[in-house]
Amino acid sequence: MNKIIVQKYGGSSVANIERIKKVARKIVDRAREGHKMVVVVSAMGNTTDELIKMAQKITKFPNERELDMLISTGEQVSIALLTMAIHSLGWEAISFTGMQAGIITNTVHTKAKVTTINQNKIKSALAKGKIVIVAGFQGINTNGDITTLGRGGSDTTAIALAAQLRATVCEIYTDVDGVYTADPRIVPSACRIPAISYDEMAEMASLGAKIMHYRAIDVARNYEVKIMVKSSFTEGKGTVIKEANTMLEKVMVRGVTHETNVGKIVIQGVPDVPGIAYKLFKALAEKEIMVDMIIQSSHHNEINDIAFTVALNDFNEAIRITNQIAEEIGAKGVISESKVAKVSIVGAGITSDPSIAARMFGALAKNDINIDMISTSNLRISCLINSSRLADAVRAVHKEFNLDKVGEE
Amino acid sequence: MNKIIVQKYGGSSVANIERIKKVARKIVDRAREGHKMVVVVSAMGNTTDELIKMAQKITKFPNERELDMLISTGEQVSIALLTMAIHSLGWEAISFTGMQAGIITNTVHTKAKVTTINQNKIKSALAKGKIVIVAGFQGINTNGDITTLGRGGSDTTAIALAAQLRATVCEIYTDVDGVYTADPRIVPSACRIPAISYDEMAEMASLGAKIMHYRAIDVARNYEVKIMVKSSFTEGKGTVIKEANTMLEKVMVRGVTHETNVGKIVIQGVPDVPGIAYKLFKALAEKEIMVDMIIQSSHHNEINDIAFTVALNDFNEAIRITNQIAEEIGAKGVISESKVAKVSIVGAGITSDPSIAARMFGALAKNDINIDMISTSNLRISCLINSSRLADAVRAVHKEFNLDKVGEE
Repeated sequence: MNKIIVQKYGGSSVANIERIKKVARKIVDRAREGHKMVVVVSAMGNTTDELIKMAQKITKFPNERELDMLISTGEQVSIALLTMAIHSLGWEAISFTGMQAGIITNTVHTKAKVTTINQNKIKSALAKGKIVIVAGFQGINTNGDITTLGRGGSDTTAIALAAQLRATVCEIYTDVDGVYTADPRIVPSACRIPAISYDEMAEMASLGAKIMHYRAIDVARNYEVKIMVKSSFTEGKGTVIKEANTMLEKVMVRGVTHETNVGKIVIQGVPDVPGIAYKLFKALAEKEIMVDMIIQSSHHNEINDIAFTVALNDFNEAIRITNQIAEEIGAKGVISESKVAKVSIVGAGITSDPSIAARMFGALAKNDINIDMISTSNLRISCLINSSRLADAVRAVHKEFNLDKVGEE
Repeated sequence: MNKIIVQKYGGSSVANIERIKKVARKIVDRAREGHKMVVVVSAMGNTTDELIKMAQKITKFPNERELDMLISTGEQVSIALLTMAIHSLGWEAISFTGMQAGIITNTVHTKAKVTTINQNKIKSALAKGKIVIVAGFQGINTNGDITTLGRGGSDTTAIALAAQLRATVCEIYTDVDGVYTADPRIVPSACRIPAISYDEMAEMASLGAKIMHYRAIDVARNYEVKIMVKSSFTEGKGTVIKEANTMLEKVMVRGVTHETNVGKIVIQGVPDVPGIAYKLFKALAEKEIMVDMIIQSSHHNEINDIAFTVALNDFNEAIRITNQIAEEIGAKGVISESKVAKVSIVGAGITSDPSIAARMFGALAKNDINIDMISTSNLRISCLINSSRLADAVRAVHKEFNLDKVGEE
C-alpha cells in the first residue's frame, strides 16, 4: 500500500461551500502526488455552537447522550459535502461517520476517549483508491451510542487515525500558517516557530494556543506521529511538531501563550485533616473536570484555603461540586472569580534556569500587573492575572524574552 | 408489556423549539395514560430541502450515498432535541437514529425500502419505561451505509414500527386535523372525512393528498395497522384509516385530489414491434422512477406514440433515460411538458358506475378545461390538465359530487 497521509481541516477551513470546494482541491492535489488520503473534518464554522444553543433553548442541562446525538450531526454534514466536492473533481471518495470509521470510545458522553479503532472500512476504501473522509470529534461506544470527544476532538481523531494507520504525517490545517511565539492578534511582532517538540507544543496547547488540543498532541507523542501545522488559506512552511532530540536548535523560551477560558474557585476555611484535597479533586475528576493551577495556603490556626482553576465551560459544574464538598467537610465557604486570565511561557527545561521565572515576574511587575497564582512545570511557568491586563501582560513577556527575533529558518 | 402506541410528527410539527416543546407535552400526556410510546420524528421544518440546496451548490448531481449521509442529519437533530424536551418534563426518553432503531433497508440510496426491523433496542428501552424517539425517513443497509426512504419516509418508518411492534394504533400528526374531501386552501367548503379505507387513502395519497405517503399506507394495509390522522396544533377527531369492511358508511366519491408535482413525457414515432414499452418502463423502474399515467396511441402507419407521466423530481432523469431508449429503438423523438397537473376523484368501486366518470368529464368541460390524458383504476379517475386551470378543476369536480355536504359524524 502507498504511503498514507492524514489531514485534518478545522471548522473555519470548511465554514462555507466555497471553502469546502477549495479544501477538496487541496486534497485532490495531494492525492495526485500518489498518496493514500484520509481526511478528518470538523463541523462547518460554528455549527456546533449553534446546535448547543438550540439544545439550551430547550433545557439548561441537556442530557449528554442526547447532546452527542445532536452535535455529531455537524461533522456528518461537512463530510458529506466535502465528499461530494471531491467527486465533482473526478476523484473517488467516501465519507464515514465516526461509527463507520470504527472509532470506538469509552462511554463518557461529550468528552469520550478513543479506546480502539477498527480500521477495516477505511483500509478497504483506501485499497480501492478512494479518498476517505472521516467525521472528526465523534465515535461510538460499546452500547452503540454516539459519543463526542470534547474540545479538540477532531485533532484527536486525526492523530489517532494517523497513529493506527502508520501515516507518514498528520497535516493539521487551520486558519494560521503554523505555531507562533504568541498570538499575532495581540503581539503583531510574533514569529512563526519552524519546529517544536511534542512536549513544548502540548504545553503551548494546554496553555491556550488554539492551534491544536493538547490531548491530541499527547497521543501524537505516544505514537510518534509527525505533525505539520499549516494554513488552509495560504501556502507556507508551517510548523513541524516532532521529537525534541531530532531538532537542531535549542531555544529556552519558545513562546508566550494566554488563556481566558479560565475561572478560579477558592474553598475557604478547610479543616486541616488528611484526605480533603483528595476528596475534592476526586469528585471533580469523576465529572472529567480538569483542574489546572492548585494552591493550598495554610493559616496559623491550621485552617487552609484551597484555590484552583478550571476551564470556564466546567466552571458552574465545578462550583456546584465544590459547594457540595465544602458542606460535607465543614469548610467556611466557596468563592469564585471568572474575570481572570492566564499568561504562560513555554520551553523545555524552562524551570532549570531560575532567572527565567525572575525575568517573567519582573516584566509583569514593571507593568503593574498583579500575579494572583503561579504554577510551574519543567516546561512552563504560568501566572494567573486579572483578565483586563492580559494583552499588556502577553506583550511585556514576549518582549522580555526577545521572541520577536526568532526569525525564519 | 403495556399496549404500544406509535406516533409520528412531521416536519411542520417540530419546525421550531416552541413546537418541539409542545409536541413533547403531547407525548408525555399520552404516556401518562399508561401507554408505551414510540415516536417517529421528521426533520425540523424544511431542513431537508435546505440540506439538499447545500449539496446542489457543490454539484448538480450529488452522489446518492453522500446525499443520504447529509440529509439523514436533519432527523438526528430533531430526535435529540425532542428527547431533551421530554427529559425536561421529567420523563425518561431515549433517541435512536434509524440504525440504532434497527431499521434495515435495501441498498438503494435516497429511496430505500425497509427490509427488516431489529426491535431489540426499542423493546429493551420500552421495558425500562422509556419513551422511544426514532429518527424517521432513515435506515441502514447491509453495508453499514446510511440510507433514506424517500418521500413520505417518516410515515413508512412509523407504520413499519407499528406493524412490527404490534402497536394498538399509529397516530400520524400533521398540520391539518384529518383527511379532507379536497385541499381546503383550494376548496374552502371541503369537509373532513371521519373514516376512510386503506385502499381509498392510498389512492388519495398517491394522487396528491399530502397527509401521508401511499407507500406507508400500503404497509399499513398489509399489516392491518390502524391509523389515526390528527393535527399537532388543534384538538379534533381526525380521520381513522382502517379496513373497508369495518366502516359503516358507503360513499362513492370520497374526495378530490390534485397533484402539481408531475411532468409529461411523450416518445414519438415508436416502431410497432413487441417489447418496446417493456424496455422503456424497465429502464425507468431500474432507476426507481414511478410512472403514473401511460397512454399508447396508434397511428395508421403502425407507428405509435407513448405518453406517460412521472413525478417532477424524477423528470430530468426520466427524460434522459427516455432519450436514450428512443435513440436505441429508432423512435422519432421525445417531447416533454412540465406545465401539467392532475386532478383525481377517489372512491371504492368508482369505475363500476360509468356515470361518475361522465359527471367528472362533464364538470371539466363545462369549465372549458381540456383533458390531456385520462387514467382510471377501480378506486380513482384521474385527468391530466394544464396546470394553470388546476384550482378551477378541483372546485368544479368537488362541487359536482356535493362533497361540501359530507358533514361530520
